[in-house]
Amino acid sequence: GIGLDTSRELVKRDLKNLVILDRIDNPAVIAELKAINPKVTVTFYPYDVTVPLAETTKLLKTIFAQLKTVDVLINGAGILDDHQIERTIAVNFTGLVNTTTAILDFWDKRKGGPGGVICNIGSVTGFNAIYQVPVYSASKAAVVSFTQSIAKLANVTGVTAFTVNPGITKTTLVHKFNSWLDVETRVAEKLLEHPTQTTLACAQNFVKAIELNKNGAI
Amino acid sequence: GIGLDTSRELVKRDLKNLVILDRIDNPAVIAELKAINPKVTVTFYPYDVTVPLAETTKLLKTIFAQLKTVDVLINGAGILDDHQIERTIAVNFTGLVNTTTAILDFWDKRKGGPGGVICNIGSVTGFNAIYQVPVYSASKAAVVSFTQSIAKLANVTGVTAFTVNPGITKTTLVHKFNSWLDVETRVAEKLLEHPTQTTLACAQNFVKAIELNKNGAI
Repeated sequence: GIGLDTSRELVKRDLKNLVILDRIDNPAVIAELKAINPKVTVTFYPYDVTVPLAETTKLLKTIFAQLKTVDVLINGAGILDDHQIERTIAVNFTGLVNTTTAILDFWDKRKGGPGGVICNIGSVTGFNAIYQVPVYSASKAAVVSFTQSIAKLANVTGVTAFTVNPGITKTTLVHKFNSWLDVETRVAEKLLEHPTQTTLACAQNFVKAIELNKNGAI
Repeated sequence: GIGLDTSRELVKRDLKNLVILDRIDNPAVIAELKAINPKVTVTFYPYDVTVPLAETTKLLKTIFAQLKTVDVLINGAGILDDHQIERTIAVNFTGLVNTTTAILDFWDKRKGGPGGVICNIGSVTGFNAIYQVPVYSASKAAVVSFTQSIAKLANVTGVTAFTVNPGITKTTLVHKFNSWLDVETRVAEKLLEHPTQTTLACAQNFVKAIELNKNGAI
């Protein structure tokens, strides 16, 4: 989906390291990313964003020890299924907040940290809900609000933040998904009747946003 | 706080029943509410909004069996403490979504239900974050977004919804609270330097909003 295509675009750049955190390891994908640009060290760690904060901190300790510095955190985990209320909120919102909170421990200038950049994946539904998936949409509104606040705190923490908010993108996520209490059984079909973008187009704009790196941008 | 003063205002009206759901029973308060207007039956049930959906459904079964009909649900549980990330999200956002989802089982017109009215307590921080409490503010942005979606689904479910979004109100909630990662240690003090309203004024406007009962209002 968007994550993979974004990784493909990122490794084409002058990057030292790309660390992929995901629930499931996909060695073929990691090998493909390594092959695109051998100058970039691509590593993978298993990570489920719904783990408690302390576990995230532990994983980040390992990563920071290995890399010495980390410049950018991309919070990209997301699910779209309004039958799963708790999990939608845990992955899309709580997980993003916890991961952000954990990395501040390493980046916060009040602790002598070097600062850093956080890129959070919101969604246009954070601004205009797809009301058939009110939980998903609200979780994205929360991401946008949270990130705006973090951006305003950059003078305190040294950490800047922005969101990337894709419109309808042809990913496996939107291929088929459940609406809240089945208020609309054809929600995926109806959504895909609107103009869509490819994951590649989304990823390219995404990397552009990372390169622009404007604190507070949406 | 706001909940108690709102209950005081509500029982002054021509109401048949007022059911108070709260984590902790306060018999003195229930007795006071009963005394204000003996024509209103005031009952209390212990309820923690962070319980799983199935438990909420069980409690609502008991309440609907007792009252036959319930006209209005007010989702008013809220905490303000950005040291408690998971709990803030669980109480302010997930709990409200779960309670709303559970009551739809009884109200949904697709199931032969009579419809109903949901009043959700948002906050001005859902629109303009207090960025020193990014988690709280984001949870309220989520409440506003979620409620807007539910309001748009009224033609499907028969259930209307609106939010009430108080500004700074002199409650115990804002007397002292923690900012995210202590980015501002005097956040409560600084907040109270702004103009504030009393819980009574807030409650009176709140009941006015319930009486107006405009679907989708914010």
